[in-house]
Amino acid sequence: MQVDTDQTAPGIFAPVIENPGARGRVVLVCEHAANAFPAPWGDLGLSTDQKNAHVAWDPGAIGLARGLAARLDAVLVHAPVSRLVYDCNRAPNMPGAMPARSETYDIPGNAVITPQERARRTAAIYVPFHAGLHALLMDRVALGMAPVVVTIHSFTPVYFGKPRLVEFGVIHDADDELSRNILRQALDQTSLRSALNAPYSAADDVTHTLRIQATPYGLPNAMLEVRNDLIATVQTQEAMADILGPVITAAVDGLGMARAG
Amino acid sequence: MQVDTDQTAPGIFAPVIENPGARGRVVLVCEHAANAFPAPWGDLGLSTDQKNAHVAWDPGAIGLARGLAARLDAVLVHAPVSRLVYDCNRAPNMPGAMPARSETYDIPGNAVITPQERARRTAAIYVPFHAGLHALLMDRVALGMAPVVVTIHSFTPVYFGKPRLVEFGVIHDADDELSRNILRQALDQTSLRSALNAPYSAADDVTHTLRIQATPYGLPNAMLEVRNDLIATVQTQEAMADILGPVITAAVDGLGMARAG
Repeated sequence: MQVDTDQTAPGIFAPVIENPGARGRVVLVCEHAANAFPAPWGDLGLSTDQKNAHVAWDPGAIGLARGLAARLDAVLVHAPVSRLVYDCNRAPNMPGAMPARSETYDIPGNAVITPQERARRTAAIYVPFHAGLHALLMDRVALGMAPVVVTIHSFTPVYFGKPRLVEFGVIHDADDELSRNILRQALDQTSLRSALNAPYSAADDVTHTLRIQATPYGLPNAMLEVRNDLIATVQTQEAMADILGPVITAAVDGLGMARAG
Repeated sequence: MQVDTDQTAPGIFAPVIENPGARGRVVLVCEHAANAFPAPWGDLGLSTDQKNAHVAWDPGAIGLARGLAARLDAVLVHAPVSRLVYDCNRAPNMPGAMPARSETYDIPGNAVITPQERARRTAAIYVPFHAGLHALLMDRVALGMAPVVVTIHSFTPVYFGKPRLVEFGVIHDADDELSRNILRQALDQTSLRSALNAPYSAADDVTHTLRIQATPYGLPNAMLEVRNDLIATVQTQEAMADILGPVITAAVDGLGMARAG
């Protein structure tokens, strides 16, 4: 029997780009948009419940991101593969890139990964994701559009058995201006329980995308985290986009004001 | 008469990768290897003398880099287009990316550049250069090869009429360990007039490649600058590679020793 090894070659999983012609400054990024487990990796030994859980993706994040894209005239870049196959918000030398365990879940298909398999997933998912985002950002920088990078995430309301009370977290990397503006607007405009660098922070190595795509270019940036029980349906995702759209707009409009004033 | 607009489309100028199968830790990068002025940009209005001058490239750098690649079993990544068309060690929002003036030289073809033309050059030269280097580095990171990024540059002995006495400069970005190791080895092993952060430093925005490709990944890195009158011929390039090869090897071997000892 002849084995067609090409059938097991992973191919290239380019990021999905929505609203490429959008004219707004904000570039929305959703690294954990999908819980897709394509060939050749399959389901990594996970059950359907596990594939739908927060460890496989950020539930609700892509719906919220699409709602924000429409309201902000923003381009949206998102990853087409589960973070458990490759987490595009982690470098290949970070433990979370292809985790063997996430929160209380063992990931059987990641228990033992050879260096060659690590390189294959990196080349198939991580490298094309960041190449696509980089090309888009550099085009907008060169055109003088002064892009602002905002990544959209959701977090689980209960983590290791402990409830999380925060509803909206704003996480910054080296440049905290946009994050502080967003937090201020959220506290002023909304009733969301909002906090800076919650439920985790850059010290937890969660700002990789910001670190490689925004910080070295001096682009204003922030990572937004919404508790996923608040964006579980299309209706609540749209409602949250109604709340956060004006928050982000006001925060971006306020960039440079503290220094100027 | 029909105009074929494709003839003026710039195409993609991917980086040149030499010794792709090299097994050494060092990844050599030469952003200013070439003084090529391909269509559709042509010579930007420069004379032959100007195209051969240090403003168009780093004379001798690619010869030195090739000599080092052979001695270090290192892969070498270099740009195929003059820095005056696009300087791959500059972000598209930095003035030096497509300079209208460099040292005492006016660059007529860069006097007025539309945003669309800036975006075209960025997409044709800068984005593919860094995508190629990023893919190569991430592959080596995923394979556990622990890459070390060393960029190879040369500088003019006379700048704005003033002689430069330093012969060998080592420039660091945020992580200075490798640069300090290289400087120490150069002072111990060689008679080169060597200095840290000379003839310029990261404060002059010259460490862009290190900032986007090495620093965010925690990869040891350094930018090497050799005075170009010392590497003007194949013979002196080889001689300099004989001198600097052991310097770099000892510096890389010494990584982590200060902390360990």
